[in-house]
Amino acid sequence: MKKLSGLIAAPFTPMNSTGDVDYERIGDYYKLLVRNGCRGAFINGSTGEGVSLMVDERMKVAEAWASCKNDQDALRVINLVGGTSWRECAALARHSATIGIDAVAVLAPYYFKPAGVESLAEFIELIGKEVPDLPLYFYHIPVLTGVNIPMISLLERLSDRLPNFMGIKYTHEDFMDYQSCLAFDSGRYDLLWGRDENMLAALALGAKGAVGSTYNYAAPLYNQLIRAFNDGNLLQARQLQQQSIDMIRLLGKYGGIATGKAFMRYIGFECGAFRSPVRNMSRSDYQRFSADVAQLDMENLFSR
Amino acid sequence: MKKLSGLIAAPFTPMNSTGDVDYERIGDYYKLLVRNGCRGAFINGSTGEGVSLMVDERMKVAEAWASCKNDQDALRVINLVGGTSWRECAALARHSATIGIDAVAVLAPYYFKPAGVESLAEFIELIGKEVPDLPLYFYHIPVLTGVNIPMISLLERLSDRLPNFMGIKYTHEDFMDYQSCLAFDSGRYDLLWGRDENMLAALALGAKGAVGSTYNYAAPLYNQLIRAFNDGNLLQARQLQQQSIDMIRLLGKYGGIATGKAFMRYIGFECGAFRSPVRNMSRSDYQRFSADVAQLDMENLFSR
Amino acid sequence: MKKLSGLIAAPFTPMNSTGDVDYERIGDYYKLLVRNGCRGAFINGSTGEGVSLMVDERMKVAEAWASCKNDQDALRVINLVGGTSWRECAALARHSATIGIDAVAVLAPYYFKPAGVESLAEFIELIGKEVPDLPLYFYHIPVLTGVNIPMISLLERLSDRLPNFMGIKYTHEDFMDYQSCLAFDSGRYDLLWGRDENMLAALALGAKGAVGSTYNYAAPLYNQLIRAFNDGNLLQARQLQQQSIDMIRLLGKYGGIATGKAFMRYIGFECGAFRSPVRNMSRSDYQRFSADVAQLDMENLFSR
Amino acid sequence: MKKLSGLIAAPFTPMNSTGDVDYERIGDYYKLLVRNGCRGAFINGSTGEGVSLMVDERMKVAEAWASCKNDQDALRVINLVGGTSWRECAALARHSATIGIDAVAVLAPYYFKPAGVESLAEFIELIGKEVPDLPLYFYHIPVLTGVNIPMISLLERLSDRLPNFMGIKYTHEDFMDYQSCLAFDSGRYDLLWGRDENMLAALALGAKGAVGSTYNYAAPLYNQLIRAFNDGNLLQARQLQQQSIDMIRLLGKYGGIATGKAFMRYIGFECGAFRSPVRNMSRSDYQRFSADVAQLDMENLFSR
Repeated sequence: MKKLSGLIAAPFTPMNSTGDVDYERIGDYYKLLVRNGCRGAFINGSTGEGVSLMVDERMKVAEAWASCKNDQDALRVINLVGGTSWRECAALARHSATIGIDAVAVLAPYYFKPAGVESLAEFIELIGKEVPDLPLYFYHIPVLTGVNIPMISLLERLSDRLPNFMGIKYTHEDFMDYQSCLAFDSGRYDLLWGRDENMLAALALGAKGAVGSTYNYAAPLYNQLIRAFNDGNLLQARQLQQQSIDMIRLLGKYGGIATGKAFMRYIGFECGAFRSPVRNMSRSDYQRFSADVAQLDMENLFSR
Repeated sequence: MKKLSGLIAAPFTPMNSTGDVDYERIGDYYKLLVRNGCRGAFINGSTGEGVSLMVDERMKVAEAWASCKNDQDALRVINLVGGTSWRECAALARHSATIGIDAVAVLAPYYFKPAGVESLAEFIELIGKEVPDLPLYFYHIPVLTGVNIPMISLLERLSDRLPNFMGIKYTHEDFMDYQSCLAFDSGRYDLLWGRDENMLAALALGAKGAVGSTYNYAAPLYNQLIRAFNDGNLLQARQLQQQSIDMIRLLGKYGGIATGKAFMRYIGFECGAFRSPVRNMSRSDYQRFSADVAQLDMENLFSR
Repeated sequence: MKKLSGLIAAPFTPMNSTGDVDYERIGDYYKLLVRNGCRGAFINGSTGEGVSLMVDERMKVAEAWASCKNDQDALRVINLVGGTSWRECAALARHSATIGIDAVAVLAPYYFKPAGVESLAEFIELIGKEVPDLPLYFYHIPVLTGVNIPMISLLERLSDRLPNFMGIKYTHEDFMDYQSCLAFDSGRYDLLWGRDENMLAALALGAKGAVGSTYNYAAPLYNQLIRAFNDGNLLQARQLQQQSIDMIRLLGKYGGIATGKAFMRYIGFECGAFRSPVRNMSRSDYQRFSADVAQLDMENLFSR
Repeated sequence: MKKLSGLIAAPFTPMNSTGDVDYERIGDYYKLLVRNGCRGAFINGSTGEGVSLMVDERMKVAEAWASCKNDQDALRVINLVGGTSWRECAALARHSATIGIDAVAVLAPYYFKPAGVESLAEFIELIGKEVPDLPLYFYHIPVLTGVNIPMISLLERLSDRLPNFMGIKYTHEDFMDYQSCLAFDSGRYDLLWGRDENMLAALALGAKGAVGSTYNYAAPLYNQLIRAFNDGNLLQARQLQQQSIDMIRLLGKYGGIATGKAFMRYIGFECGAFRSPVRNMSRSDYQRFSADVAQLDMENLFSR
């Protein structure tokens, strides 16, 4: 697989009113992303609540996204198969390999934490070796896994050991480490930036692709930001990034990750509720929230 | 179920040389615990690597322990069904209810962390309501879950809402909170102490039962400690606790949780290796380790 | 100096309405502590806002307490001279040595943190060697200094190097480490317990003396607790400890350390306000607070 | 005072062989910085060990730097007067105002931490009001103070209350917050970037000035980086930033802050040792270190 570029959305998993996965909506979701200029989908991730799903649900979500590719191969689909049991991760990865998924991604195990980079490398290798023909990414997100090992050390460990290791989804604000990873072995690995609110800084350092949750509903904003940066128009790029920040600040104000599904409702693509333990926005909070969104005055920057 | 008292071992999951679970050994394990004065087994827990097993492995481990009870109902068996997906936890709990397990336990979800006590209470309630006739414990272990909510608040939330809620396995050194939980509603809940190295302090506050990993291999030490405390012999109790501390310090010296299986080897009950990402002791480390254990000069305090 | 035993209050520093230290009140403060059964005073500590005072204010506070001893040598007075500059700590220690202070205490430096136990030992040694005839304690309070090094390692380092090193004020809930320190070198060092809400657990392990802020206003409660424990009346000791916990919970409810001065006002010994950055209780908060205190129904357990 | 731009070095405090401050060397230090294109000096800061000095030493260091300005007013000199006692900070600030210092800076108090932004704002205001004619900066460095409050909230609080508040030395990798501060009130405040290893990212967001320790010995590198960025030559800017990273990685390898004085020795400007608790490099470590520096192959990028 070639390196990814542009916007990779991390889709929410659509749920119906009984809290079951609404697999039927995934076809429309695929089209929404394509229509708004996304280049890929990182499914079953943090945004997609992979860890809150049951094993067979994760498989069916992956199948639904993979089957969209059959119709119209417009998005690269990366499936997060991470978890705390490497054997379960491997089983999910093998399943991915059989259904047309483009790549899988794994997390640092987040109950027993690896004692160091070698333990982490071994965990990844055990999974990766079970799917030698499938590209594999590591998803670095210390704020959720509690595992904060410099990624440059991981690249050094894995570069000789795991041929299908493709790179990192880097969701952590350590630009010194990130830049070192970009430069490693003449830029061999794919370093997907994972903090939407810092895209401009990452572009300055050389990022080409980015995975994020806000690309689900505000892809036009970020595509304009990338274009402004590529045109050397830093003033406009900064202004767009600031609009992204103002939007993202509402996630903090309204309680974090569940706010994302409220944004989806706002743009007209209902995704239902998050599963426990994530708390969903109340009806009255949603009204305050949508008033705040309207005040951002960025209608033309949302996906539609 | 009545409150538990005395030692509840948290068994290791026996593995064979290929890293598969060795279900056959569980019968002997059950007898080992009974023989050394344990009163219960807390299975699939941190010590038992529940989170590193696949779902069907967790079920088979539970079945193996439950079937021992058929022969000789000497131990209460509590099955940890905790995880990040409440639906998967509920499925495991329902399975436990059908096979003769005495109680289940759940963890705070450790990827998405509950934003507060109400989110945590809801998560537990969703699982507990699916097995209304099965006693349910909460397993409080912030050092691994990253969730540190005062347990007194949880008791206040759940006391009216979940009739089968039984109490807490309390693996955290917050004695102010622990003592408040013991006193709550005239001592209604079962508060199992979970830090072996602090048993004496917990006894002073009123603890009756304790769950721990070192009871697998050093039950006689702790039974003597409890006896000394009950006899009012604090000097002897302190000295035994200090021996426990000296033993537990070797876990730190030799790399944590995997050291427990080395202790099992030392007492002659081989349990194989831990799964990745836990690192296992090398052969040479084991030799240094067993020399250190011999120096503790506490052969008569180990299980046999 | 002999080891300390019983209650060592950590006095608040009395301030007047302009925020200046009210040295005049210290004589009465001394008598308050004596009258209520305290055995010592740990001055200029966290409770005493030593770090919020200027160097000359710290010296004058020490002089005021030392001069009370001239009249009536009823309390041992320990002066915290800790800070981030070892030379300034040493200057304060030398001053203490000249005015009749019984012992000094130092903190781990809390801006640049020691990289390990040897750095910490060196820092303490540099100060201690300047006052070879004055007993010196280490004040272990990781929650404020950010330095959490096992104290058993510090005892091992200092035992051969600093003859005037006397022991530790241990304000941290690591009972495994605390018990090991009590046992070190046949109980050579003085291990003063520093968490009032856990006194009973510490007594069970062998603590003899305790330093705390709530002994300023509730010394009778703790003296009764110690007596109950010594009489083997654990049920009563637990009940008194629970009353202590209920009282201490108000510190959390009303914003932390400044609540202590509100308790002093409640018992009729006005100490003024804390200096910035500590936030003082508003008048209306004080009214809610004193209603809560009245509800504790423990008038006979407060100092008077 | 106008906003600062370009490189503001944070000087080491030169010490002689007895560990006393070598005030005599400050004149040459001033010239070194001017000669290598620095525009300012941030003295008595983390790099300058302000917190490890005594009060009178901090004053004399400030006097020495201020007196250099008399000869040749080439550098803006900012004096860190931060500490845990606002009255002591204010005394140092008043002293600064009398000797020709251009601006002072304060830290969040790092023993008692402010409970929120209002407590922090009050602390700063108390100091700032004592020197109404002297520009005042806040030095944001959560990794050392333990205080991590969003700076955008601080600007909102202080903008109406403290006319001499000038801006922030921002030593924290939160680019979302940093960018919001840059944009606040049409760019009213001076936002000096404080992480040398991330300068390029900060420039992309609009940073104009930067304070750092590595500008003491590698100013040419960063001046070239700034020039490359201003010329739109991102490839060269990235390559220079990577050289900065490779150099800074040696600080981690050789034990942190004390490595800085080893770099000074390497470029021929001996500054002596750091005071305890910072550990100084051994002679043999210095030899390994200087071999590593030679391998960086960046002689022409060091100050001279």
